[in-house]
Amino acid sequence: MHVEHLAWGPSGTLRILDQTLLPAEERWLEIDTLDALLEALRSLRVRGAPAIGIAAAMGLVAALRPRAGDGAREGAHAGRARERFVGRVDDAAEAIASARPTAVNLRWAMDRMRRRAAATPGDGEAILAALRAEADAIWDEDRAMCAAIAERGQALMRRGIRVLTHCNTGALATGGIGTALGIVLRAAERGLDPEVWVDETRPLWQGARLTAWELLRAGVRHAVLPDSAAAALLSQGKVDLVLVGADRVARNGDVANKVGTLGLAVLARHHGVPFYSVAPTSSFDPACPSGERIAIEHRGAAEVSAPFGVRVAPEGSPVFNPAFDVTPAALVTGHVTERGILHPPFEA
Amino acid sequence: MHVEHLAWGPSGTLRILDQTLLPAEERWLEIDTLDALLEALRSLRVRGAPAIGIAAAMGLVAALRPRAGDGAREGAHAGRARERFVGRVDDAAEAIASARPTAVNLRWAMDRMRRRAAATPGDGEAILAALRAEADAIWDEDRAMCAAIAERGQALMRRGIRVLTHCNTGALATGGIGTALGIVLRAAERGLDPEVWVDETRPLWQGARLTAWELLRAGVRHAVLPDSAAAALLSQGKVDLVLVGADRVARNGDVANKVGTLGLAVLARHHGVPFYSVAPTSSFDPACPSGERIAIEHRGAAEVSAPFGVRVAPEGSPVFNPAFDVTPAALVTGHVTERGILHPPFEA
Repeated sequence: MHVEHLAWGPSGTLRILDQTLLPAEERWLEIDTLDALLEALRSLRVRGAPAIGIAAAMGLVAALRPRAGDGAREGAHAGRARERFVGRVDDAAEAIASARPTAVNLRWAMDRMRRRAAATPGDGEAILAALRAEADAIWDEDRAMCAAIAERGQALMRRGIRVLTHCNTGALATGGIGTALGIVLRAAERGLDPEVWVDETRPLWQGARLTAWELLRAGVRHAVLPDSAAAALLSQGKVDLVLVGADRVARNGDVANKVGTLGLAVLARHHGVPFYSVAPTSSFDPACPSGERIAIEHRGAAEVSAPFGVRVAPEGSPVFNPAFDVTPAALVTGHVTERGILHPPFEA
Repeated sequence: MHVEHLAWGPSGTLRILDQTLLPAEERWLEIDTLDALLEALRSLRVRGAPAIGIAAAMGLVAALRPRAGDGAREGAHAGRARERFVGRVDDAAEAIASARPTAVNLRWAMDRMRRRAAATPGDGEAILAALRAEADAIWDEDRAMCAAIAERGQALMRRGIRVLTHCNTGALATGGIGTALGIVLRAAERGLDPEVWVDETRPLWQGARLTAWELLRAGVRHAVLPDSAAAALLSQGKVDLVLVGADRVARNGDVANKVGTLGLAVLARHHGVPFYSVAPTSSFDPACPSGERIAIEHRGAAEVSAPFGVRVAPEGSPVFNPAFDVTPAALVTGHVTERGILHPPFEA
């Protein structure tokens, strides 16, 4: 019932729904070269940590496959020495991993594809078949992970529950039903008629653009609000539960996630509303003792000062634009994972 | 040293700096008809409660004045019966007050102009002169009020202080140096080198568009941030003080102000940072027992779903867009007014 946004094309290309055009336009891109894949990753046409890992693995296969109608090259390819093909895999995987350097899942997926290539005997054709199987496995595992998280999260759901969320943690961010939003989508499938308050999520509007679009498609009751209006909602008793994703969870339970998450956590605590972070255990980092150790990426000023090219802040005014913030463990009611609802400390 | 945005033109017209074009363009409008004044008020070319009261009083005079080069009409005007001119004042004042029905200062200024007209003996010429004096008095009083608030607020200032603010409460919102921002501008004039964190203030970006522009013009250190990044700033210990305006203060000290104010108050309390509301005592309403009694205006969906005409939320997604929120008195460290820093209850 949830949105699909990744697919294999009939000839083995990668097809992705261009997320930069949502919600105004639903346009699928056909990707079959390394350059096209790098452009799609860098331009956030596919985004969300799990989704970019899957798309990158699929795109690697699409870019390396022999082309129909190019008999001479195909023949040359088929007969190519094994080592030479593995070298091509390594080079492409390295280029892809560098397209979004802070995306841990992207590096992880590319390392996995390189290992699979190195471990597969036979020629390029055999390796390519193995890589396609590996990409499918990465996708299948994420789909199963999302389903498990959604199932575990049902412990928090009840009929008519009103959930406040931030950013996009739905199908568009993953290879399955999503993480935090997946719990609500699953509750809707079960007929619990949940209602979702959607933070617009400045500066990139992932809540307004993507989460609202998913909810509209799924027929789930919702409304979009400026991030700064969440406090009014909570103070008026209109929120039963706050559910957010987690980019990284430290050993002590501190959560790094999209900027704005910390504000919701403080507001939820102040108003006595439970606040849960939702993520697979692969996002937990026992080697990181606390949130203080998590480096926060700062993004460009134009996202804040000139959205859509319209100047809202004067030229010459500096901008503070952190991509993430860190929510202290003490403000997190629990961590929903594929293994259930966990509490720190998170040892290896 | 602060920005001027209202002026009398040489021939008695009203001149206003068009705030809808800031920060990209600084264009002055010449207003000398009732229609032009109503358009400017409705389109928020002048905004901020005190500023619209002043501009409306000045604009009323500009619209009623006799026109040069129109000898016959001017003659007729000068000789017109007193009662007929007072009727014109009443009609125009009523039309102006209705242009922004929720703006208390606008109604107040128009009532004051009508009373002055009714109380002035003589013909239209005499009444017009009295009305111009009354408009100047309204402006002068606001300028003095701002100066008094800025002076009282210096008790909160110290060298290098880092102030977080929301929306625009500077010169552009008033007839003087401003209210909450006026305190910081005054501290800068005194050489205290304050630094201002400017919430962009979705959905209308008054912080990014107007406050940052004022601070840039005044040479005050500042940075603009998405509203949702304020929590990160506070958690990192980068804010010494939160200063916001107040549209209305209830007897018990609850404060109605631009949406997003409540969130800052909760965050300030959580992080142990003082939070002050700043407003003239004319914004205090002893007849209103608490914030629960304050009706909150909800604005149109397009401000959230299609900023600058660009669709960010899907058509069909509802929007939650309250213009104001209510901050409970318990979260307000103190109320800065022209009489000093006050604490509730506020009796008549």
